[in-house]
Amino acid sequence: MSTRLPDSEFDHRLAEVREKIRERDADAGVWFGATSIEYLTGFDHIQTERPVVLAVTDDRIEITVPRLEVERVRPNPRIDAVHHYFDYPGGKPIDVAAEMLSGLDVRTVVADADGAPGVMGYDGPALSEFIEVESQSWVDRMRWAKTDAEIDLIRESAKWGNLAHRYLADYTEPGAHPATVSQQASTDASRAMLDTLGDTYVPRTRGDGPAYAGYISGPQTALPHGHTANRRIEEGDVLITGAAANVDGYYSELERTMFVGEPTDEQEQYFELMLESQTIAIDALGPGVPLSYVDQQVWDYFEEQGVTDLAQHHVGHNIGMGGHEPPYIDRGWSDHVDDRDAEMEPGHVYTIEPGLYTDTYGYRHSDTIAITEDGTEMLTYFPRDLESNVITW
Amino acid sequence: MSTRLPDSEFDHRLAEVREKIRERDADAGVWFGATSIEYLTGFDHIQTERPVVLAVTDDRIEITVPRLEVERVRPNPRIDAVHHYFDYPGGKPIDVAAEMLSGLDVRTVVADADGAPGVMGYDGPALSEFIEVESQSWVDRMRWAKTDAEIDLIRESAKWGNLAHRYLADYTEPGAHPATVSQQASTDASRAMLDTLGDTYVPRTRGDGPAYAGYISGPQTALPHGHTANRRIEEGDVLITGAAANVDGYYSELERTMFVGEPTDEQEQYFELMLESQTIAIDALGPGVPLSYVDQQVWDYFEEQGVTDLAQHHVGHNIGMGGHEPPYIDRGWSDHVDDRDAEMEPGHVYTIEPGLYTDTYGYRHSDTIAITEDGTEMLTYFPRDLESNVITW
Repeated sequence: MSTRLPDSEFDHRLAEVREKIRERDADAGVWFGATSIEYLTGFDHIQTERPVVLAVTDDRIEITVPRLEVERVRPNPRIDAVHHYFDYPGGKPIDVAAEMLSGLDVRTVVADADGAPGVMGYDGPALSEFIEVESQSWVDRMRWAKTDAEIDLIRESAKWGNLAHRYLADYTEPGAHPATVSQQASTDASRAMLDTLGDTYVPRTRGDGPAYAGYISGPQTALPHGHTANRRIEEGDVLITGAAANVDGYYSELERTMFVGEPTDEQEQYFELMLESQTIAIDALGPGVPLSYVDQQVWDYFEEQGVTDLAQHHVGHNIGMGGHEPPYIDRGWSDHVDDRDAEMEPGHVYTIEPGLYTDTYGYRHSDTIAITEDGTEMLTYFPRDLESNVITW
Repeated sequence: MSTRLPDSEFDHRLAEVREKIRERDADAGVWFGATSIEYLTGFDHIQTERPVVLAVTDDRIEITVPRLEVERVRPNPRIDAVHHYFDYPGGKPIDVAAEMLSGLDVRTVVADADGAPGVMGYDGPALSEFIEVESQSWVDRMRWAKTDAEIDLIRESAKWGNLAHRYLADYTEPGAHPATVSQQASTDASRAMLDTLGDTYVPRTRGDGPAYAGYISGPQTALPHGHTANRRIEEGDVLITGAAANVDGYYSELERTMFVGEPTDEQEQYFELMLESQTIAIDALGPGVPLSYVDQQVWDYFEEQGVTDLAQHHVGHNIGMGGHEPPYIDRGWSDHVDDRDAEMEPGHVYTIEPGLYTDTYGYRHSDTIAITEDGTEMLTYFPRDLESNVITW
């Protein structure tokens, strides 16, 4: 059981960015993005109007934070010094970060942005008003391929997502409210996860999950990004579910098309078309396979079946610390990137979720699958077949 | 009971931006930000790597969306034409948006950004590669002052947040798990809200609440942005709660410091100091009052009491469609803005949440308060006094 990223991961990540800093002849790498800062140091925070600025030099790691993060960052074993401003805007965060860089004898930096992002109304000066800044997006690119330790966390996430999804199916019956079923399944799975993991659980949320399952039902399923309507479950409803868990900041994705009672012949027909398209995509995955090829395989199948007008999106996306991450399994991917970035590589973790949407209902499964040295590993495992996805009561 | 923004709100908002477009001698206003697009049209969507682009001219409103949003946006009565690309990156969203602008005979635009934001790995061309672009942030500024209709939604949000908070307090006892108590309170309040509002409820969420309550407990309360730890409630714990509900996209904020059983003398002392500082801030609010003055009043009180080293953040922030919005009640606010933006105005809605954090526990209430023509209106109303915030079982 692996529920916490080992320290060695951060050693490797920091060694890699330090190598890149040297290659660029810069004195420091600088990051404003919360996910990148967490990726490099393990310090996680909510990105708000209060900027956080990380500086990495060849031998030091220092950070500028608002006063309210000081006690949260101080125990971090990788960060050598914590600078702070009181609050925004009075505290002048970029001035404090510039002083931090000056104290490190830094003259040129390569940064993930020329200043903090305009989140929640933040509006401040460019870092280049203080120091010479060149740009990089190293961490975004490093995150494409996951290590074995990262995949362990995604595998653990899939387990608790599976439990939440099992509860979701068990609690569903005609007359039940989708919001209540979803929330009860999330509550019970979260509690089971917390009680199972005990002290090995890394606190990640405030009040809600770590485990989650929910669904949209009936006509809302025809909309890939539909909402949970205020109507009770009825016999004959189609559901599109979603389940996951947050394990030390990593996610998986499990979605199923389910039927409340026996589906109609038409519903069964679309379900089987969708299921076959997902199988085609799963079978096409592997190291060295162009992402565009996988999406094209599904499109060719939809064309052959005459249902391209029911498709509304590509096959899937990479997943890890972010719910959606590049690369995307999209027919246009090869044209979007250099040749060397066009193919799947060991450590990429993809959602495979081709969908079909009629005027009345939607049909989509999503599974999370890792690319390995010689093939693939399914990380989600809730059964995909029709019979397992018909709810009886 | 008001749970949905009336159409007239959008008429006024669109008239205001059209006036601004004319003042700038531009042919169109363009928006990439999801919240701004919702503010102007009522079309809400999740901001992902798939850009959405809104164009407003003197007599037309058109939008570019990914294929998967087409059916969600088409019923919108304010949007005259929907353009789409299939998906990202194959679908070339900015090319499609540029064609949309060309079809509208637009040559110069004022836009909220020069291209779509780099969310979830989006990486695309600048709009200025296609057309002349000047910048504006009109909607961000328009959102500072809420109309009566907007405040109605925040008031409704506060009601359901209050119910969730009541359940939270009722379900808390030694041995209970904070995650389970939080999730059960959210589940039950959401169900009550959905069953009460019936068809007047505007679907806003997927699987999770519209109503929410949760807390951090024990040592985590010493961290303003602490997490829910995996430990059960114990007699003597300090809790910092949070509760809200999403009402047609608008939020309120209710937080309380609570005690599981009778507080110690030291805990009572810090609670009363925090409570008095909140009262000082509430009493200082009003139209025409500089924001900096309110934060300074609290700071002066903390200085007088010798507890400035226990303060970690300013007094509060505006709230509405965003959880945090400018302006911020911060001693540095007056130096940050033009004189005309330095004062509170009718329609601003503020959280008032000065806090004190010792080495062991934190103490913070938060209330949501509207500035009116001649004073203030408390929108949250859970009792603030010590006795009401001691939990017995």
